[in-house]
Amino acid sequence: MSIENISNNKAFGGWNKQYTHRSNTLNCDMRFAIFLPPQINTGTKVPALYWLSGLTCTDENFMQKSGAQRIAAELGIAIIAPDTSPRGDDVANDASYDLGQGAGFYVNASQAPWNRHFHMYDYIVNELPELIEQHFPISDQRAISGHSMGGHGALTIAMKNPKRYSSMSAFSPICNPINCPWGQKAFSAYLGADKDAWKEYDSCELMQSATKFIPALVDQGNDDQFLSEQLKPHLLAAAATDKSYPLQLNYHDGYDHSYYFIASFIEQHLRFHTKHFAANNH
Amino acid sequence: MSIENISNNKAFGGWNKQYTHRSNTLNCDMRFAIFLPPQINTGTKVPALYWLSGLTCTDENFMQKSGAQRIAAELGIAIIAPDTSPRGDDVANDASYDLGQGAGFYVNASQAPWNRHFHMYDYIVNELPELIEQHFPISDQRAISGHSMGGHGALTIAMKNPKRYSSMSAFSPICNPINCPWGQKAFSAYLGADKDAWKEYDSCELMQSATKFIPALVDQGNDDQFLSEQLKPHLLAAAATDKSYPLQLNYHDGYDHSYYFIASFIEQHLRFHTKHFAANNH
Repeated sequence: MSIENISNNKAFGGWNKQYTHRSNTLNCDMRFAIFLPPQINTGTKVPALYWLSGLTCTDENFMQKSGAQRIAAELGIAIIAPDTSPRGDDVANDASYDLGQGAGFYVNASQAPWNRHFHMYDYIVNELPELIEQHFPISDQRAISGHSMGGHGALTIAMKNPKRYSSMSAFSPICNPINCPWGQKAFSAYLGADKDAWKEYDSCELMQSATKFIPALVDQGNDDQFLSEQLKPHLLAAAATDKSYPLQLNYHDGYDHSYYFIASFIEQHLRFHTKHFAANNH
Repeated sequence: MSIENISNNKAFGGWNKQYTHRSNTLNCDMRFAIFLPPQINTGTKVPALYWLSGLTCTDENFMQKSGAQRIAAELGIAIIAPDTSPRGDDVANDASYDLGQGAGFYVNASQAPWNRHFHMYDYIVNELPELIEQHFPISDQRAISGHSMGGHGALTIAMKNPKRYSSMSAFSPICNPINCPWGQKAFSAYLGADKDAWKEYDSCELMQSATKFIPALVDQGNDDQFLSEQLKPHLLAAAATDKSYPLQLNYHDGYDHSYYFIASFIEQHLRFHTKHFAANNH
């Protein structure tokens, strides 16, 4: 699998880069961003945080707005930010912002026309890490985080693959997509009418049926305009309580759904993941 | 003078806000962004850093990409980010990115059609601080900084008004606009053929004729694609040496002209300005 470099920006002593590559999983060309911390110059492999962005985003939003590179450079973590869906003129799309390109929801679509390209779950779990670990000095120590739709993606992917990730976190995640308008619209289109298939991609359902636990951190703003209708973190908290799942859920007065919220608390997430990288090393 | 609030985002315990207002100086409606640090809740006025952005930018670029709010919240500094030019359907413009809207160059235009609206110098020096200090708990302790065209703006405005700013700084500034393509194009259009008028807005010329010095910090990437043709910091360094002007000019290997460079070093700029706020208080 080959990759093509398309941008390089030095940042905090490391490098912020973008690459394109042909994705066999998604059946189209894809772009991703990667931050390589200065520690890669010492010849040791560094752990990786995969960041999944929300609706309408690309690989660029988090890298440009979160300020995460400052802390990743200090801690020696690589950050990989994929796009949020397959893209291209021959990829199915929808005029609304919450379906189709930019809105892949990190599932494997089973329904036409989406099933030709929309396999973001397989891409994030398998193809992308394989590509990253082949081309960069990055170890198989992985954590995963994301925002909103990407928070849903991070939590579901980690809980479905607890051996592949040492920790998971999210900002303002869609916690119970089978019970909110964004999730119901996307899952109807991508997965069809069978609601049992939807439960395979629902954080609350996955937490209720979890047998292997990994540490989880979720931050949520109390002034988030999507909190009660779309996000519903109280349902994830209830599932965690039921299962004694190791979830730390923090609410923050005054904060909204924007990247200003992410920028304000991303440092704690990187330190959280680093602590669990280290714990898994011993 | 009234202002209208159009956005509010909590960030790092403070508030990132945008406002619109009618500018008498620019003869059009203008938008600015302001970061108010949490210290304003204590009832004391805070000092202000004015940030001037570069070509094509608006009030948003710095606020979204620099990460400066983290340090401003720690240090108790407000940041004010104006737009880079007058705007609007009835404001003169040019098809190129380096003239007209988005490219005001922080001068008072004397030539038609630009002289009807393009008085960014007066706006930044007089109207905007008056508006800010009227509406927000912000003291008359001011520093000024900027990037590229905005670095040119920050240095020239501070040197022309050394009593109004306790310190000045810049990232990748256009140091000698009368001798580079960007500056010559803009000054020809805005100021006309008389090159003596251009010297009033040239950092090297102003430094050579300075009688009151204020502390200056400039950072420049060695891999900046505009370094040798447009920016020419070595000429500013030569003027500083001639005059024993207190300029600290730092070059950084590998860094380019992007916001990733600004994000990497903005913390040092905020600490530099804070040191000089404090010195001026005694």
